[in-house]
Amino acid sequence: MIKVTVWNENAHEKILPRVTEIYPGGIHEEVARILRECDDIEVRTATLDQEECGLPDEVLNDTDVLIWWGHMRHPDVPDELVAKIKRRVHLGMGFIALHSAHHSKIFKALMGTECYLRWKENQFERIWNINPAHPIAQGIPSCFVLPEEEMYGEFFDIPQPESIVFLGWYKGGEVFRSGCCWTRGAGKIFYWQPGHETNEAFLNPHCRRVIQNAVHWAAPTFWRKDIRVPYTGKNAEEDYALGIEEEI
Amino acid sequence: MIKVTVWNENAHEKILPRVTEIYPGGIHEEVARILRECDDIEVRTATLDQEECGLPDEVLNDTDVLIWWGHMRHPDVPDELVAKIKRRVHLGMGFIALHSAHHSKIFKALMGTECYLRWKENQFERIWNINPAHPIAQGIPSCFVLPEEEMYGEFFDIPQPESIVFLGWYKGGEVFRSGCCWTRGAGKIFYWQPGHETNEAFLNPHCRRVIQNAVHWAAPTFWRKDIRVPYTGKNAEEDYALGIEEEI
Amino acid sequence: MIKVTVWNENAHEKILPRVTEIYPGGIHEEVARILRECDDIEVRTATLDQEECGLPDEVLNDTDVLIWWGHMRHPDVPDELVAKIKRRVHLGMGFIALHSAHHSKIFKALMGTECYLRWKENQFERIWNINPAHPIAQGIPSCFVLPEEEMYGEFFDIPQPESIVFLGWYKGGEVFRSGCCWTRGAGKIFYWQPGHETNEAFLNPHCRRVIQNAVHWAAPTFWRKDIRVPYTGKNAEEDYALGIEEEI
Amino acid sequence: MIKVTVWNENAHEKILPRVTEIYPGGIHEEVARILRECDDIEVRTATLDQEECGLPDEVLNDTDVLIWWGHMRHPDVPDELVAKIKRRVHLGMGFIALHSAHHSKIFKALMGTECYLRWKENQFERIWNINPAHPIAQGIPSCFVLPEEEMYGEFFDIPQPESIVFLGWYKGGEVFRSGCCWTRGAGKIFYWQPGHETNEAFLNPHCRRVIQNAVHWAAPTFWRKDIRVPYTGKNAEEDYALGIEEEI
Repeated sequence: MIKVTVWNENAHEKILPRVTEIYPGGIHEEVARILRECDDIEVRTATLDQEECGLPDEVLNDTDVLIWWGHMRHPDVPDELVAKIKRRVHLGMGFIALHSAHHSKIFKALMGTECYLRWKENQFERIWNINPAHPIAQGIPSCFVLPEEEMYGEFFDIPQPESIVFLGWYKGGEVFRSGCCWTRGAGKIFYWQPGHETNEAFLNPHCRRVIQNAVHWAAPTFWRKDIRVPYTGKNAEEDYALGIEEEI
Repeated sequence: MIKVTVWNENAHEKILPRVTEIYPGGIHEEVARILRECDDIEVRTATLDQEECGLPDEVLNDTDVLIWWGHMRHPDVPDELVAKIKRRVHLGMGFIALHSAHHSKIFKALMGTECYLRWKENQFERIWNINPAHPIAQGIPSCFVLPEEEMYGEFFDIPQPESIVFLGWYKGGEVFRSGCCWTRGAGKIFYWQPGHETNEAFLNPHCRRVIQNAVHWAAPTFWRKDIRVPYTGKNAEEDYALGIEEEI
Repeated sequence: MIKVTVWNENAHEKILPRVTEIYPGGIHEEVARILRECDDIEVRTATLDQEECGLPDEVLNDTDVLIWWGHMRHPDVPDELVAKIKRRVHLGMGFIALHSAHHSKIFKALMGTECYLRWKENQFERIWNINPAHPIAQGIPSCFVLPEEEMYGEFFDIPQPESIVFLGWYKGGEVFRSGCCWTRGAGKIFYWQPGHETNEAFLNPHCRRVIQNAVHWAAPTFWRKDIRVPYTGKNAEEDYALGIEEEI
Repeated sequence: MIKVTVWNENAHEKILPRVTEIYPGGIHEEVARILRECDDIEVRTATLDQEECGLPDEVLNDTDVLIWWGHMRHPDVPDELVAKIKRRVHLGMGFIALHSAHHSKIFKALMGTECYLRWKENQFERIWNINPAHPIAQGIPSCFVLPEEEMYGEFFDIPQPESIVFLGWYKGGEVFRSGCCWTRGAGKIFYWQPGHETNEAFLNPHCRRVIQNAVHWAAPTFWRKDIRVPYTGKNAEEDYALGIEEEI
């Protein structure tokens, strides 16, 4: 069972009726519904307005994959929480950054760059699958259309991805690396561009499948016990002579 | 169920009694025994001395992951068979090259390089796990030892791997990229260095686990119908206007 | 001084007057003119209709960077010549594949894939610079337009590039990895999409700059003496004890 | 002319006479001497004990490549300075982290990981060139020896490098990714393992050459004007219709 926590700043929901019209209960509830379709996933939601931003230690430390949606309240996420999330990614937790989470404190801290990009609301987008053998592309056609979505365009200031799975095309003239993978420590990270609060990407069946695939891909296969590398003070040949097996 | 065919040139087995002493039935049988430990894997073996080199179309086209062990009879694999295997990798079949398969026709054709390296028999090797979050590293400790194995040393003339999972250390002074991943078309490829015919790497529990992990990682998540990209002759906007969904 | 040979199959030039109207003397002459603007480059041209396809040993073995344009006569390039070019790339020669050279024998042999793609003539293209720090992007703006060019669209069946420098956007709805880098042996390889025979990409100042940059990037910094890895038969510690320095 | 600033915490120099015996004037002076051998490099040094840690704005903003050596005083580098350096790397400045700089605040912030590793002083190391075509490997043999150097061993907790140029072998049994490249924003980053304060790596001719090569590789080919992506508020097709060229 993969334990997923879907985090949302839950702010647009309170001022734009359109958001909860599309996504009853808010974006986090819609993403949770996407994942509840999978038998091997157990979902929780958490929001910024909850106590401890919805991520007290007992929740964070019980999460295998954390999904993040934020936009206008990035600065309100405390640095201490960002440090805790980063540490847990390094230990093995998967992290999926949706849409405007590109500018969240935690995503920028994991990337080491500022993650700026171009943008424009309500654009016609076509997403191309350029890595059909990748687990996240499973079941996704050659391309599919989102009639209205916020354009995010290059230059996207991210480190070179380990894999690029999807590229976005916009009628207005832009392209974008829409689906990208990285590893940090033992944690797998996926960035996924669609998901503007007033459009309907999370209802699109291909987008839903991508998020399900991404959770399965990002689920930890290994948890480090510590972000430090275990170290006996001896070198490997000495440990071997003594019959000591080094942990990872 | 993942359908695996373990291919072996089965040549050293006929002249060096040591090989079948270590691996009753030959290297292919030992690798098959490794995989029969997994409930979700169905294994066949095939050898060069069989009809059609053990890989008639009905076998090749029923294989999800092909494992290859060859050494002194690389030139005897017909070019036509190499072309067929390459095509099937491009369509989605996983391919795992073991040890001296680095110099097989099929591995070189998939890499686009000559895959030379340094070598010396009966060396002490320690394998380091440098990518603990990778699915192929699951369950593998920080490092482990093969008291006798053929040293394969850098410079290893391969294209830059998409992921390096393991590095080899040899008491004699060399290092090696021992476990490397690539994609070609829709097919996933893993090269794994241990496995000299007169040493015992395939009995080592960590090596066995790596091979099991590699099969699970390389199992196809997608089969292309053709190595050509489907193409309607129209562009994507025209197809969209006509309601045509492009296949991948 | 970088010695560049610009190779062209020189076939469309003989049947489509448009080609030599745009590019007097043929595509190879235009590419040569682009490079003659650089003081540190010495250019030769070679064409399929010349003796030994324009690439006798004394030319090939005196070439630092080979630029390749071919389209309808790919099959007429002899396999022996392909093998010689491949070997020279492995030794250190740079190789730049222009436009329809994606389907040349030599490019496919270096890639290990079939390099299929979608295509459609006379499309409006915008090229985006997604790697502004890359030497090949030097002097190239954020994006620029080719009002008419042959669309090449994803899925492009290539191995994962070591760097992607440019992405193409087409008004018709497609995207493409338009400028990609790989290494094979000691040779650097760049693929560049623009350059259809009846359009004018080679006159575009940004495209000209990309080709100049690519030659400087692909120029060899090291020549291997042999595609085999030099090997003394001893291991590195033994060689060291004997004061033998291993060559690369 | 490439403007290089060599930064050193200059702390061991004050307590261990051995350091200035090997490196008169301190590590920063030795690295500066290495670079003064190149006609196209202009070198300055800066140390933690100087005003503004040796890096007031007028120095930092006049630096093309910053070289960093630090070890026991990492915590004393102010966060504000780290943020300024990071911003300048994102704009285009090259950054070379030497040896124990793996644990500097600035390197960790650029990587997005904690950069732990195994270590042990005074070990015998052999460095292997596994990327002979890379500009940083130019002139470096197949392998070379450092009779005494601090061992840094895997698992090294870094993001997957864009290129690995060197691997380290230690007599004690470890391996290491000794020379690694990344890009962050428009800035190129190189990590280089040798350089313990009481050993003599900076006197080794191959290590000296690597540092010279790395400066040439990391020298900016492009400076961004801002870490934000320039944005007109219009999409690319609108800008094109209006004849506006978008900056990068």
